[in-house]
Amino acid sequence: MTSVFSGFGPIRYEGPDSRNPLAYRWYDAKRVVLGKTLEEHLRPAVCYWHSFCWRGEDPFALATPLFRRPWFDEPDPMQAARLKMDAAFDLFTCLGVPFWCFHDRDVAPEGTTLRESNARLDQMLELAARKMQDSGVRLLWGTANLFTNPRYMAGAATNPDPEVYAYAAAQVKHVLEWTHRLGGANYVLWGGREGYETLLNTDLKRELDHYGRFLAAVVEHKHKIGFKGTILVEPKPQEPTKHQYDYDTATVYGFLKRYGLEDEVKVNIEVNHATLAGHSFEHEVAVACALGIFGSIDANRGDEQLGWDTDQFPNNHVALVPALLEILRAGGFTTGGMNFDAKVRRQSIDPQDLIEAHIGGLDTLARALLSAAALYESQELCDARRQRYAGWDGELGRRIEAGAGLDELAALVHAQSLDPQPVSGRQERLENLVNRYV
Amino acid sequence: MTSVFSGFGPIRYEGPDSRNPLAYRWYDAKRVVLGKTLEEHLRPAVCYWHSFCWRGEDPFALATPLFRRPWFDEPDPMQAARLKMDAAFDLFTCLGVPFWCFHDRDVAPEGTTLRESNARLDQMLELAARKMQDSGVRLLWGTANLFTNPRYMAGAATNPDPEVYAYAAAQVKHVLEWTHRLGGANYVLWGGREGYETLLNTDLKRELDHYGRFLAAVVEHKHKIGFKGTILVEPKPQEPTKHQYDYDTATVYGFLKRYGLEDEVKVNIEVNHATLAGHSFEHEVAVACALGIFGSIDANRGDEQLGWDTDQFPNNHVALVPALLEILRAGGFTTGGMNFDAKVRRQSIDPQDLIEAHIGGLDTLARALLSAAALYESQELCDARRQRYAGWDGELGRRIEAGAGLDELAALVHAQSLDPQPVSGRQERLENLVNRYV
Amino acid sequence: MTSVFSGFGPIRYEGPDSRNPLAYRWYDAKRVVLGKTLEEHLRPAVCYWHSFCWRGEDPFALATPLFRRPWFDEPDPMQAARLKMDAAFDLFTCLGVPFWCFHDRDVAPEGTTLRESNARLDQMLELAARKMQDSGVRLLWGTANLFTNPRYMAGAATNPDPEVYAYAAAQVKHVLEWTHRLGGANYVLWGGREGYETLLNTDLKRELDHYGRFLAAVVEHKHKIGFKGTILVEPKPQEPTKHQYDYDTATVYGFLKRYGLEDEVKVNIEVNHATLAGHSFEHEVAVACALGIFGSIDANRGDEQLGWDTDQFPNNHVALVPALLEILRAGGFTTGGMNFDAKVRRQSIDPQDLIEAHIGGLDTLARALLSAAALYESQELCDARRQRYAGWDGELGRRIEAGAGLDELAALVHAQSLDPQPVSGRQERLENLVNRYV
Amino acid sequence: MTSVFSGFGPIRYEGPDSRNPLAYRWYDAKRVVLGKTLEEHLRPAVCYWHSFCWRGEDPFALATPLFRRPWFDEPDPMQAARLKMDAAFDLFTCLGVPFWCFHDRDVAPEGTTLRESNARLDQMLELAARKMQDSGVRLLWGTANLFTNPRYMAGAATNPDPEVYAYAAAQVKHVLEWTHRLGGANYVLWGGREGYETLLNTDLKRELDHYGRFLAAVVEHKHKIGFKGTILVEPKPQEPTKHQYDYDTATVYGFLKRYGLEDEVKVNIEVNHATLAGHSFEHEVAVACALGIFGSIDANRGDEQLGWDTDQFPNNHVALVPALLEILRAGGFTTGGMNFDAKVRRQSIDPQDLIEAHIGGLDTLARALLSAAALYESQELCDARRQRYAGWDGELGRRIEAGAGLDELAALVHAQSLDPQPVSGRQERLENLVNRYV
Repeated sequence: MTSVFSGFGPIRYEGPDSRNPLAYRWYDAKRVVLGKTLEEHLRPAVCYWHSFCWRGEDPFALATPLFRRPWFDEPDPMQAARLKMDAAFDLFTCLGVPFWCFHDRDVAPEGTTLRESNARLDQMLELAARKMQDSGVRLLWGTANLFTNPRYMAGAATNPDPEVYAYAAAQVKHVLEWTHRLGGANYVLWGGREGYETLLNTDLKRELDHYGRFLAAVVEHKHKIGFKGTILVEPKPQEPTKHQYDYDTATVYGFLKRYGLEDEVKVNIEVNHATLAGHSFEHEVAVACALGIFGSIDANRGDEQLGWDTDQFPNNHVALVPALLEILRAGGFTTGGMNFDAKVRRQSIDPQDLIEAHIGGLDTLARALLSAAALYESQELCDARRQRYAGWDGELGRRIEAGAGLDELAALVHAQSLDPQPVSGRQERLENLVNRYV
Repeated sequence: MTSVFSGFGPIRYEGPDSRNPLAYRWYDAKRVVLGKTLEEHLRPAVCYWHSFCWRGEDPFALATPLFRRPWFDEPDPMQAARLKMDAAFDLFTCLGVPFWCFHDRDVAPEGTTLRESNARLDQMLELAARKMQDSGVRLLWGTANLFTNPRYMAGAATNPDPEVYAYAAAQVKHVLEWTHRLGGANYVLWGGREGYETLLNTDLKRELDHYGRFLAAVVEHKHKIGFKGTILVEPKPQEPTKHQYDYDTATVYGFLKRYGLEDEVKVNIEVNHATLAGHSFEHEVAVACALGIFGSIDANRGDEQLGWDTDQFPNNHVALVPALLEILRAGGFTTGGMNFDAKVRRQSIDPQDLIEAHIGGLDTLARALLSAAALYESQELCDARRQRYAGWDGELGRRIEAGAGLDELAALVHAQSLDPQPVSGRQERLENLVNRYV
Repeated sequence: MTSVFSGFGPIRYEGPDSRNPLAYRWYDAKRVVLGKTLEEHLRPAVCYWHSFCWRGEDPFALATPLFRRPWFDEPDPMQAARLKMDAAFDLFTCLGVPFWCFHDRDVAPEGTTLRESNARLDQMLELAARKMQDSGVRLLWGTANLFTNPRYMAGAATNPDPEVYAYAAAQVKHVLEWTHRLGGANYVLWGGREGYETLLNTDLKRELDHYGRFLAAVVEHKHKIGFKGTILVEPKPQEPTKHQYDYDTATVYGFLKRYGLEDEVKVNIEVNHATLAGHSFEHEVAVACALGIFGSIDANRGDEQLGWDTDQFPNNHVALVPALLEILRAGGFTTGGMNFDAKVRRQSIDPQDLIEAHIGGLDTLARALLSAAALYESQELCDARRQRYAGWDGELGRRIEAGAGLDELAALVHAQSLDPQPVSGRQERLENLVNRYV
Repeated sequence: MTSVFSGFGPIRYEGPDSRNPLAYRWYDAKRVVLGKTLEEHLRPAVCYWHSFCWRGEDPFALATPLFRRPWFDEPDPMQAARLKMDAAFDLFTCLGVPFWCFHDRDVAPEGTTLRESNARLDQMLELAARKMQDSGVRLLWGTANLFTNPRYMAGAATNPDPEVYAYAAAQVKHVLEWTHRLGGANYVLWGGREGYETLLNTDLKRELDHYGRFLAAVVEHKHKIGFKGTILVEPKPQEPTKHQYDYDTATVYGFLKRYGLEDEVKVNIEVNHATLAGHSFEHEVAVACALGIFGSIDANRGDEQLGWDTDQFPNNHVALVPALLEILRAGGFTTGGMNFDAKVRRQSIDPQDLIEAHIGGLDTLARALLSAAALYESQELCDARRQRYAGWDGELGRRIEAGAGLDELAALVHAQSLDPQPVSGRQERLENLVNRYV
């Protein structure tokens, strides 16, 4: 059996001077830095939805598929799903990535009842299990699609109709159990419809409570079935809804605290979601690390001039260094990884475009990691930071951190006639320092 | 003694048909709706900083004052402060507003030591206390300016230098105690410099911890001195810093939860800060109400095309109705109010412009409140919302809210062959309904 | 024959106090202000695409139609087109609007060849002609869909392949001729794919030249066939492309000047496109009026927090007054009108939602027009503006406008020791003045 | 005489491996690529305003200077100006840049009359002329500050008061003549206040006409005095005004066409202004090149998350390659250059920070240029682009470009049954190709 991707790989590392568009120039999977291989650092994954399910539609071309892939023309939906899965594992193998990710509805077509949908999913994931066995490709995470079917138009866990909540719960149960069975490292919840279109018809507080209860039920079920992976929530500010409850990392943290889940759930940060929320990518990573909820990454990029989720492949390694540095400082991934939640541009209609896009993305990540690792090893940046806060390790700093009150501190200011003077923050020097390593 | 504002008022209510630019057309302070007067509902305040301290500078005209007010030309700083305060209370009285707000550095010039600064502040606030007594104008809130002096260039509570933290603590202590003495209804903290310019030189986690400790110390001091007002944090996403830790209401909530302060501190929501953070104003209000931290409002508006804090006076009552409706639903203000954190446009250089700006702003708030109150009284919108969630008061909803797990719900979905169907959200009908009341 | 809309109308004017959701509260079509009826002022139109062709897809629900309309379930495409047209004219009649608008592919399904597509279009537009005759509904404008079919993925007039240009030319010819035959008041070109995704593969200058040539060919053909309507270009900054050549009104003006078309082509300004381009709606209208290219309006609104084209129905009349005032000042529409390029929210799945949305939109426009007309009649705002520029009608102003050079003016400044002083711009007073009329 | 910068330089090129923060790692001024030295390609300039005039104010710290430079403490304004100029030329020499840029009010304090202001300017520019002679530093461009003084609060050329227009004309005359005398390569007009705050008080058309007349007068004067440099307009969308007439390059082009100035005036494109206008930097460059009005560059960067002009130094060379490639394709600069319209971050208060900032910025430009030059020399990208449009050099393309009409093309489509098929745009391959050179 051949697929549209079976003629290409395997893609090999040829070094920075290679002019071969079908070779890695920076991603040398087995190269060791800071005690781990690049593959262990990055834990890269290919996603199923953009790569194999998108037909090239956009808001101004809904009706007519643009991409020509054999499975889109196959009339039998289960046969189409099998053709698609053959192609998918061919691409995984061609690229030599260690992980993949999926939604239930990506791999198997929905049936007319949940029972039929589950049966179809079972059939396809049995096949996936065999292909994982054969190829050595592992599952970074699974997830349930709770946003495409019209029943979810007003939310899944936050739907005004409790039957929809129940339906979503049943769907998640099935995918969570499969994720466990497939040895998935994480299970992701992206609340694409968990939000509102207008406050006029929305009971915000009640919806938040239902969403909190839903997430708690997922955590309970994880423990019940013995799943050891991490439960991840994926922040996004809006799109498709006007406002999504998982707006950004700080919002998710407050939500987890409210429902007592901050030790059970972490975040899957997407680059393009970070920027849509008004943050830099490194900000979201740094916040998650500081708050103890850093989980995984959806590696892509947005377009700085466009106000929607463009999900482009990363292509500027310099821009990624600060975030990778934060990840290294926090000790790197545990169960998380770098999932390419990215798609080719709509005009890139050839199968080879998809391969080259992944090569470029992976090279960009690898190059950024190598820069960040060298920067991290040099200790110059960390030293500068430590030095800047040195006062906090002195007498006054310790007193404050131990809980000094306003009266005590006011007395001290007056007694010592404190008059602290500004000290340069050296931002440009530090930026130049980073550039020495890129 | 006459001031630039002493020739104008008092501004009186003349009704919607008045063509007098120095009269209220909608703000009839003593008119009763929903059991309270408009004044009791809105609790409007004039701010000191924009109205009396701004000289017309902007980023492209730093050097040369534009506005001509007598106190800017007075060489003795304390005499200038007195002239300014005379004018301020003349404006408060002219407008007939019940409240004012101030930063310490607005009312008294900073001295060369904190002791001198405090002494100057004492002198000016003694004067303010007498003027409050005479005029009946009350204090909505006081606050300490922890952002203008160069010592705060890298933060106050989050400064890398603990001496700056101590200095800020001493400064807040003094203003908090004065706020208490002046009968202030609230004390506000706006963390204009509590954030970062670059992550490269920032220890995010440590800064957050210091900020949490600082806020706790303020709360402790409040209780120590017996202040019964509310401690308010004012969210803002950025400006002057690249990123501020009090980004938005949801972020502040997570921060309060992290440091155990969610029952002690509420938010002062500014309209223009909400929109800079990527939210609608009504969103921020609704979130604060749902999370139990709604405190007060900085009433202004931003410019939809500009990416900075323009602090314009409200002038579109239709746009404000949804937020006022949320406030009414939540029971209205307790200690909070509507502070005009707003300034005239830079070309509006005449004293009368400032009066007319406040009249327009107050009329806009009053008109929006009257619309929201009528809408609220009609119950139509509330009924539509209640009806939409009716299922959650049934058997299934109760089971879920009581903690049903994934297994239980999946069994139910399969047993009952649940297939919930979408129901119209009726957004346009509800929007038309709102428009019936504006 | 009954359709989903045939049971509702006709919608009648019942006045502001009506509580009937299926009545106009402000749109009294025959009411006369400033010498014209509201219908003559607004010239409202219903669009075909959003109202009858959209199935409820969004970027996260591409596969499964959400809206249930009979024509979506009809397997024969021409029979589906007829069912759709029956429903469309039922809605037009129900609402009592004088105009409609269409793309070729909205009314008739594309065939396998252009010849077949044209034949299908002929068949459907013959039917439309009869329905227009029967109903009295007129055509505000027609247009060709040059963006949905995959052949246009890289542009129509600006495609790298000249065959696509030729195909587009042939398609436009057919729709332009039909627009003429149906008595259309305008013909619109929206260059949805006339732009670029990346400069890396784009010959910007050559594409602009091709686009200029295309537009000139349309103008030539208009004159050849004797079409007296206006050719309109519709500015939009981006979406679906990364950058569209018709970015905004000022950009279109420069483009028209470059190709000598500024007296032949005007703009169709969409509210949501204006705001996506970083402008207020009134800005785009004012610029078009000042440059002499104001044509028509796509009446909708965007969401201030969302970065894509939400195409919501107008619902804040206060926000529209400044733009309507500019239109009145410029003499009102000639061939243009107010086309509702707007769609219901995705959860508003019932046919009645679409009717109520149009009612709300039309009421909002009517109310805004009544306010703007009263403001215009009062002359207060115009007088204030005239007074502000009065100096330019004096001696110095006339000398400058007549062409005084730098030497002459410098001599005058020194001779007269000119030292002009700032004068208040009175922005808040003027904003309050506007609010007196809303 | 020593200044704060006199102890540092000269900064030398030490190569990529240098760890010296006071050395260039990429800017090897005399290195030749594509037939010119790096210095000839980049033509870098230091600006006077940010580097020597900014005291560290920001919108939340207007009153108190933060930066400590000796000239800010000098009470005699002319002596302060001389101290400042000494320091400025020390920095120019230290950095080894070939050019500088200034506003009149940067170098000499404004007097109480224009005559006095001119006399002060004469005195300081005589000094500058000697320093230029001594140092070999040349003038990239001069400009008049028409935005700081209160007289310009409502515009200079577009002021409602014609006396302000006259004053501005006299001021520009003087600076233009000095620019000529100093051998300036260009003269720049930035219309910081040429725009509006509200349309309510604005006669847009009349203001545009005045602005057009003003620009024409400048061009006439240039020819009268024999100045051979280029007149440049600097686009900016807003800030300080709500809307500026020179919004972006395409808007300026239309404006120049309207007033017949498109062959006389070019644009000075600022990176941060491009992004504030909703464009990529390379877009603005590509548009200017395509329209024949590319002039010069203000080299800086904005912050992707901030909505105002942050004027940071460039620090991501990868991000600059596409724009530099466009410049190389267009033949490089003629009179233009790369002016660092950039400032250190507010916390970078030491003189050395300013030096390191310029080093980092210049290294970033040099590295980007080297990458772009290598990419340009390889021809791979140009070849791919040429190939993509090859059809336009064939028979059909030539017929269309020669003016084929709709009838002719429709006949051809039908006769040949044209059915053009989509071809991959290969965006990811081209992005990977670019990355091979960075």
